[in-house]
Amino acid sequence: MMQSPRGTRDFLPDEMERRRFYEGVLRQIAQRAGFREIQTPIFEEAELFILRSGPNILNELYAFKDKGDRDLALRPEMTAPAIRSFVNNMSNDPKPIKIFYFGQCFRYERPQSGRYREFFQFGAEIIGTATPQTDAEVIAAALEMVKALGLKGYKARIGHIGVLRKQLLKARIPEDEMPEILQKLDKKMYEEAWPLMETAGVSREEAELLFELTGTTGGAEVLSKIDGEESEYLKEVLGYLSAMGTDAPEIDLGVVRGLDYYTGMVFEIEAPVLGAEKQICGGGSYTLSELFGGEKVFSTGFAIGFDRVLLALEKEGAVHPTNKMDAYVIAVSDDMKLKAFETVGMLRRSGISADIDLADRKMAKAMKHASSVGSKFVVIVGGEEMKSGSVTLRDMTSGEQRLIKVADLPAAIRGH
Amino acid sequence: MMQSPRGTRDFLPDEMERRRFYEGVLRQIAQRAGFREIQTPIFEEAELFILRSGPNILNELYAFKDKGDRDLALRPEMTAPAIRSFVNNMSNDPKPIKIFYFGQCFRYERPQSGRYREFFQFGAEIIGTATPQTDAEVIAAALEMVKALGLKGYKARIGHIGVLRKQLLKARIPEDEMPEILQKLDKKMYEEAWPLMETAGVSREEAELLFELTGTTGGAEVLSKIDGEESEYLKEVLGYLSAMGTDAPEIDLGVVRGLDYYTGMVFEIEAPVLGAEKQICGGGSYTLSELFGGEKVFSTGFAIGFDRVLLALEKEGAVHPTNKMDAYVIAVSDDMKLKAFETVGMLRRSGISADIDLADRKMAKAMKHASSVGSKFVVIVGGEEMKSGSVTLRDMTSGEQRLIKVADLPAAIRGH
Repeated sequence: MMQSPRGTRDFLPDEMERRRFYEGVLRQIAQRAGFREIQTPIFEEAELFILRSGPNILNELYAFKDKGDRDLALRPEMTAPAIRSFVNNMSNDPKPIKIFYFGQCFRYERPQSGRYREFFQFGAEIIGTATPQTDAEVIAAALEMVKALGLKGYKARIGHIGVLRKQLLKARIPEDEMPEILQKLDKKMYEEAWPLMETAGVSREEAELLFELTGTTGGAEVLSKIDGEESEYLKEVLGYLSAMGTDAPEIDLGVVRGLDYYTGMVFEIEAPVLGAEKQICGGGSYTLSELFGGEKVFSTGFAIGFDRVLLALEKEGAVHPTNKMDAYVIAVSDDMKLKAFETVGMLRRSGISADIDLADRKMAKAMKHASSVGSKFVVIVGGEEMKSGSVTLRDMTSGEQRLIKVADLPAAIRGH
Repeated sequence: MMQSPRGTRDFLPDEMERRRFYEGVLRQIAQRAGFREIQTPIFEEAELFILRSGPNILNELYAFKDKGDRDLALRPEMTAPAIRSFVNNMSNDPKPIKIFYFGQCFRYERPQSGRYREFFQFGAEIIGTATPQTDAEVIAAALEMVKALGLKGYKARIGHIGVLRKQLLKARIPEDEMPEILQKLDKKMYEEAWPLMETAGVSREEAELLFELTGTTGGAEVLSKIDGEESEYLKEVLGYLSAMGTDAPEIDLGVVRGLDYYTGMVFEIEAPVLGAEKQICGGGSYTLSELFGGEKVFSTGFAIGFDRVLLALEKEGAVHPTNKMDAYVIAVSDDMKLKAFETVGMLRRSGISADIDLADRKMAKAMKHASSVGSKFVVIVGGEEMKSGSVTLRDMTSGEQRLIKVADLPAAIRGH
């Protein structure tokens, strides 16, 4: 039997309804905050992702060649395509440009709980301004989204890549050795960071200071422990967040994010209910456009792991509204079939969702089918009552039945 | 400069808004008629598409191997994935199953007007019943969709694959030579069909009869020219369409469709405004499930070429509603910036779409930006009036300005 490829999923109607509902929530929050949707291709030149993430990304890419022998790859993320599209199409538009996007991404890795080879991201970027307001606006959008989704347990942490970078520079660590050390520190893997730092000539004392910095967490008050512009900057960001009425994220100077294109503020949101793979959102300010052949333009953005968020909501027992079919139309006998189709056509044109038996079922079996597809009402067409233009309307919740003129059906069904 | 790959497109905010609007129209008509959405992966095992379309499809596939050395391919269409998903996940559900899907498909061909390497399809299938009602329901859905999109010039044609097949059998053409001959006849390429038919032993007289059949078009009355169950069947289909209030498609016995998995009714919708590449929808009844390892189950479905439909609407000058930003908030001076962010946060929580200056612009420049992003209102925060909790609300259409309490802003903006 043919199956869907390993690490991919089929979404069936109930699940799809759930996904579209939550996608709609994210979309609404984004649009309210002035973000507008863009869509980029499912695949790009592989080079685009190498420029953003380094050559190691190749191990995770679904790569292939086109007929022009160009190296293409299914997108593993959507920030690089969004910024490429900005460079190509929007670089002369008034700044800032506020965009969002939603879609499939692909990663060639061992499938496990909450990790798929085909997964979905929802992301947003503000391109063209580098101000505390911009960062606050982006963090607020992410937090308002998570809140609007109805997620109860989540935790946001904000940091500034400059704090650690500055200390690493003070400790005379060369720029090109920083990314690896930062990655270890980001994961609080001090045992593995230390040998790298020692080789780079860092004293144990300096290292301890760095480890302490990455462990610095708390409210706005912890910012007083560090000096300089980074601290002032984060205070401003928190001020704007507070003005907007958005709950303040925790300060965590150990948030470094895995990639070295970040330039300042970085933040993450996690859902503890997910256990080890708990990160549901990550973002920060960065520059990428100059890598793709554009001018250097500052941006701030984030991506939400849509599948993980849905998993977290499921674990929390979240319920979402469902769309039940309004009416199921049944003909009592074969000679009433055309009349039944007339009724279903009229109902649909009135904006009522309506279905009808297509399998030549007898009355009782059709009734059973109407019940199994979860229709709110059944409309029974035929018999004596049809002579006076009436049908029987049965409320499938209460079981009540009544005679009603066909023309009055839409109002009766809608009024329910 | 990095570019999007050949044959693909970036959709920018205005175009994306247009696409989402029309996607929403299709979605609504589908849901009203009892179809529910599914989603399958962007890629499948290449074999799936070969089973459906024959080995020639390989020339058009974006194919690649996964780490398990399996041959995968980006989907060139979505009927095969939908039926594969039915076989895997839904074969025990109550029949009929009514599903729809929307998404990207990929075809490795020379890009040209209205043809892209990444393109979008909207499709629907009814699986598990083989009745004239089923076929009518599917045709009605397709026609109601095209109508709801607002397309003015379109033409639907319906035929029955059995009519020609029966005549080809009568003329003693072997089953395995039929597909090629049918394909020529489908395109009314009589000159090229004749040598194939002659080789198969068909007399010129029989051939002429076949050519005439494929040229038989008109209203329901032309069905009287042919005998047998196919004619009766199509009459029934037309009867149900008429009952539902859907305009009858033209009968065209030359509609054969390109693929030999069709089993009965076939139909097409075209938009003449598109010229040579005018087909916007194609469908019919078929069986595929048995090719994918399931039981043989009859289905009827169609796919709409979303990009072509949008092109046709554009050529017809169709207009769609656009969502303008409700309000743009401007602080008159730096010390009012936090107040402005408070206002924007409050407006968004009230369901108002609102944006705010992020670039530390002075008043006049911020006003210009508000105008360039097309905001309906501007809210000016600051000055004397703020002391009494008021702001200035400027209607960007009329140019009128008035003082208003901050708390009254949502109602004033919404009431517009």
